[in-house]
Amino acid sequence: MSTTETGAPGLSGPLAGVRRFLEGDRFQNFIIAVILLNAATLALETAPQTVGGYMHVLHVIDNVCLGIFVVELAVKLAVYRHRFFFSGWNWFDFIIVGISLVPAAASLSALRALRILRVLRIVSIIPSLRRVVEAGIRALPGMGSIVLVLMMLFVVGAVVSTKLYGETFPQYFGTLGDSLFSLFTVMTLEGWPDLAREVMAVHPNAWAFFIPFLVITAFMVLNLFIGVIVAAMEETASEEEQKLEVVERELNANLLTELRSLRAEIAALKKP
Amino acid sequence: MSTTETGAPGLSGPLAGVRRFLEGDRFQNFIIAVILLNAATLALETAPQTVGGYMHVLHVIDNVCLGIFVVELAVKLAVYRHRFFFSGWNWFDFIIVGISLVPAAASLSALRALRILRVLRIVSIIPSLRRVVEAGIRALPGMGSIVLVLMMLFVVGAVVSTKLYGETFPQYFGTLGDSLFSLFTVMTLEGWPDLAREVMAVHPNAWAFFIPFLVITAFMVLNLFIGVIVAAMEETASEEEQKLEVVERELNANLLTELRSLRAEIAALKKP
Amino acid sequence: MSTTETGAPGLSGPLAGVRRFLEGDRFQNFIIAVILLNAATLALETAPQTVGGYMHVLHVIDNVCLGIFVVELAVKLAVYRHRFFFSGWNWFDFIIVGISLVPAAASLSALRALRILRVLRIVSIIPSLRRVVEAGIRALPGMGSIVLVLMMLFVVGAVVSTKLYGETFPQYFGTLGDSLFSLFTVMTLEGWPDLAREVMAVHPNAWAFFIPFLVITAFMVLNLFIGVIVAAMEETASEEEQKLEVVERELNANLLTELRSLRAEIAALKKP
Amino acid sequence: MSTTETGAPGLSGPLAGVRRFLEGDRFQNFIIAVILLNAATLALETAPQTVGGYMHVLHVIDNVCLGIFVVELAVKLAVYRHRFFFSGWNWFDFIIVGISLVPAAASLSALRALRILRVLRIVSIIPSLRRVVEAGIRALPGMGSIVLVLMMLFVVGAVVSTKLYGETFPQYFGTLGDSLFSLFTVMTLEGWPDLAREVMAVHPNAWAFFIPFLVITAFMVLNLFIGVIVAAMEETASEEEQKLEVVERELNANLLTELRSLRAEIAALKKP
Repeated sequence: MSTTETGAPGLSGPLAGVRRFLEGDRFQNFIIAVILLNAATLALETAPQTVGGYMHVLHVIDNVCLGIFVVELAVKLAVYRHRFFFSGWNWFDFIIVGISLVPAAASLSALRALRILRVLRIVSIIPSLRRVVEAGIRALPGMGSIVLVLMMLFVVGAVVSTKLYGETFPQYFGTLGDSLFSLFTVMTLEGWPDLAREVMAVHPNAWAFFIPFLVITAFMVLNLFIGVIVAAMEETASEEEQKLEVVERELNANLLTELRSLRAEIAALKKP
Repeated sequence: MSTTETGAPGLSGPLAGVRRFLEGDRFQNFIIAVILLNAATLALETAPQTVGGYMHVLHVIDNVCLGIFVVELAVKLAVYRHRFFFSGWNWFDFIIVGISLVPAAASLSALRALRILRVLRIVSIIPSLRRVVEAGIRALPGMGSIVLVLMMLFVVGAVVSTKLYGETFPQYFGTLGDSLFSLFTVMTLEGWPDLAREVMAVHPNAWAFFIPFLVITAFMVLNLFIGVIVAAMEETASEEEQKLEVVERELNANLLTELRSLRAEIAALKKP
Repeated sequence: MSTTETGAPGLSGPLAGVRRFLEGDRFQNFIIAVILLNAATLALETAPQTVGGYMHVLHVIDNVCLGIFVVELAVKLAVYRHRFFFSGWNWFDFIIVGISLVPAAASLSALRALRILRVLRIVSIIPSLRRVVEAGIRALPGMGSIVLVLMMLFVVGAVVSTKLYGETFPQYFGTLGDSLFSLFTVMTLEGWPDLAREVMAVHPNAWAFFIPFLVITAFMVLNLFIGVIVAAMEETASEEEQKLEVVERELNANLLTELRSLRAEIAALKKP
Repeated sequence: MSTTETGAPGLSGPLAGVRRFLEGDRFQNFIIAVILLNAATLALETAPQTVGGYMHVLHVIDNVCLGIFVVELAVKLAVYRHRFFFSGWNWFDFIIVGISLVPAAASLSALRALRILRVLRIVSIIPSLRRVVEAGIRALPGMGSIVLVLMMLFVVGAVVSTKLYGETFPQYFGTLGDSLFSLFTVMTLEGWPDLAREVMAVHPNAWAFFIPFLVITAFMVLNLFIGVIVAAMEETASEEEQKLEVVERELNANLLTELRSLRAEIAALKKP
């Protein structure tokens, strides 16, 4: 997700005014208010017995909010044109609002439930929340290799456990998908003793599968965490090092100018 | 909570003596003793069968302790006046003692139970414990944005899960409150496989909701922790950097004075 | 596991061409493709009802992949000879492929299941994944002493709990092995309240065994983690320190040359 | 526990030879062998059916090992006298061996089980294991204040929960001890949703007690961990800072000597 800001500095004419309005505090606060209002209506919709006969009012407000978001995006698209899609956050807004426009057939209650995702737009609007998400996303690439090794361990563990325990415990290891889910619960440590004891009642050596799997995956997850912590720290250490270097170079420059003026005086002494 | 110390340095007259007494070690140790005595009586009150007929003695001691606290606060208020409320810790003492003065109606057993909060006054009295709490509170603002994003995720997750699973699992996702509680238990990982397996028996794709929710919230909590660790470390690194800078500037100053005296000698050489 | 690279730089003649081919990108990508294909067939074999009558096709592909791995190893052995065994990763490949060659008797379904381990060869092929594993292995020696103390605590805890609770709870503490497993589940915190409450119903003081065991092992595991984090950080701090030292020495060298040329000029002044 | 080494450097005469023998590698390896042998016999004693008729042999070996430990301690006491008790590790050995000498009445099976603690003597013998424990103990004082605040929270939580839920859930909150145990399980997060849901069925607002308790204690434990990590790191940072300072002072000294010799030459120039 790119985090480039939309908008080129050279824009002028009537569009420049619209842009200034779009990026101004007043408009942003208005959008935040609409998001929060929409969050409230969507939350109230989950309690039909409380809302009673006012449910249609909520639907109207909900649609008005959606309308505002659609107009906002349309104006932004008209103003920024292709540059609109330079920012990952604009893609985010575009997709979230887009989902809401899909006609909500009765069977698609899952999609209807996703309308609440609009509330996440508040993250794209408030800069400090944007930064939290951007920091999280920046940490991901460094995790890549460890996550790949972890996934490999899961695939291997799932195939092994499906083959060994699939017939006797189809509810846990019947298919590759079941095994992946069960191994994920083992990695989170949740309920692993119950699962292991159940399997060990039939396969007494199953501990030789579960304990190494648990220890190795826990160790990889630990390494994942340490990687993130050390990366954050390296940044800090590097900043401090640069500050010190600047101080040092400056102090050194003082000494050098002093020395050079000394040299000049001696040179003056030489040729009287 | 402000941590400003009460009391202005310029106070004099008869009140100054009272103040010196209030802030002296002897009085503070007395208050600590009263708090511990009160803690003991409140703990004993939870075991009526052990206490037997002496319950009324405990109530008397309890009331005497409360009386001492009330007098202490009254005297402090008289001495420090409006400056009393400059310190967050004084507010803390004031509210805790205030709760105990609310007439304890039989129905308000919850309020009666809160009398034990008086024991927490020991944190406001012993400086090293105060520092622990103050350090914890100082760490909070840096957590603000992440906690906000986390809360947003909870709201979105609660609305989605109420809509999707509310009808089939009213005991877990019947209302927004139930869903928030259930999702909080999922975030602590406790019993999530049981919950997920139960829901997946009806909604086979529920793992596609639970696993991402679990991974994302765990990742946010991890970022919260890392933020606190890195902030603590940055402080350390910065201190070390400042120490080194001081050393460097000092060493540099030595060199400069040496160079300057050299220059003076050369100047003396120049004009004989 | 040694991580020395195979191959001496001085190799020449026709073997050199083979070696260049073996270590080239094209051949490595081919092996990665074979591994992924093999992973897919092994994964599909776990779902006989989906595969239907094509199971024998999967077996053929599986055997072809194995054949390719055997030829690859044979050629590498012929090219590198004894140097082949200098690299831990070659041992890894050798053992993994070797396991697959053991004739798969019906009773050895465990060994058959281990064929999936071949997928782990991808870690030995892709450098970034190798580095993750190598970093993990490098962290192990520093953990040695703590792991030893932890093992000692487990042995002591297992003997004590077998003696105390072995007769009343043979399902948890019947043998030393059972006790070790139960204590391991306690260390992961999973289900420890249920276990402890069950034992405490018969031995009311059992909490005096479980809580200290849990706190001490958790504290040791924490120390293990901190050791790894601090080691990673020390490396970072040391690197920064070296960078700064280089800068300092360089700046200092500048000053010294300046000073020396000054001295030379004065010397020239001296003997006119 | 003090970690001072036993033995003054000035000891001489016949005792000096005994001391050299006691502290020599040969004797220490012998004691390690005895400890491991003893560990094996104590472990075997837990499996009477495997040992069969040889149980009395184990008892004999066990007593011989104990005899060796007693003689070792007696000799050490004779050699070091009052200085023996300067070392925490000697106290440790003394108490552990002492426990084994208490006559093992049939009713004291708990004390008999404690004989296995002798195995922990290996920690006091092998220096690298000693260092692990000493590092752990050194970390404790820094934790003091946080542990105190945590204990205070537990006492307050236990009194409140006993008062509020003691009557309806005597199995969890019947007495102060039960409440402390239940709250400890909540702090480890284990099974807290089950406990909370059970209590919430009767007291619907119980979440307002459990969730804040859980969050605050988890936050305190996190602060405990961070304190340990930051302390370890501060040490590292401080060492690096000192190394850099040494380099700097050395480089500066070079410059100063150069400058001084320059000054001497100028002085020589001055008075020809």
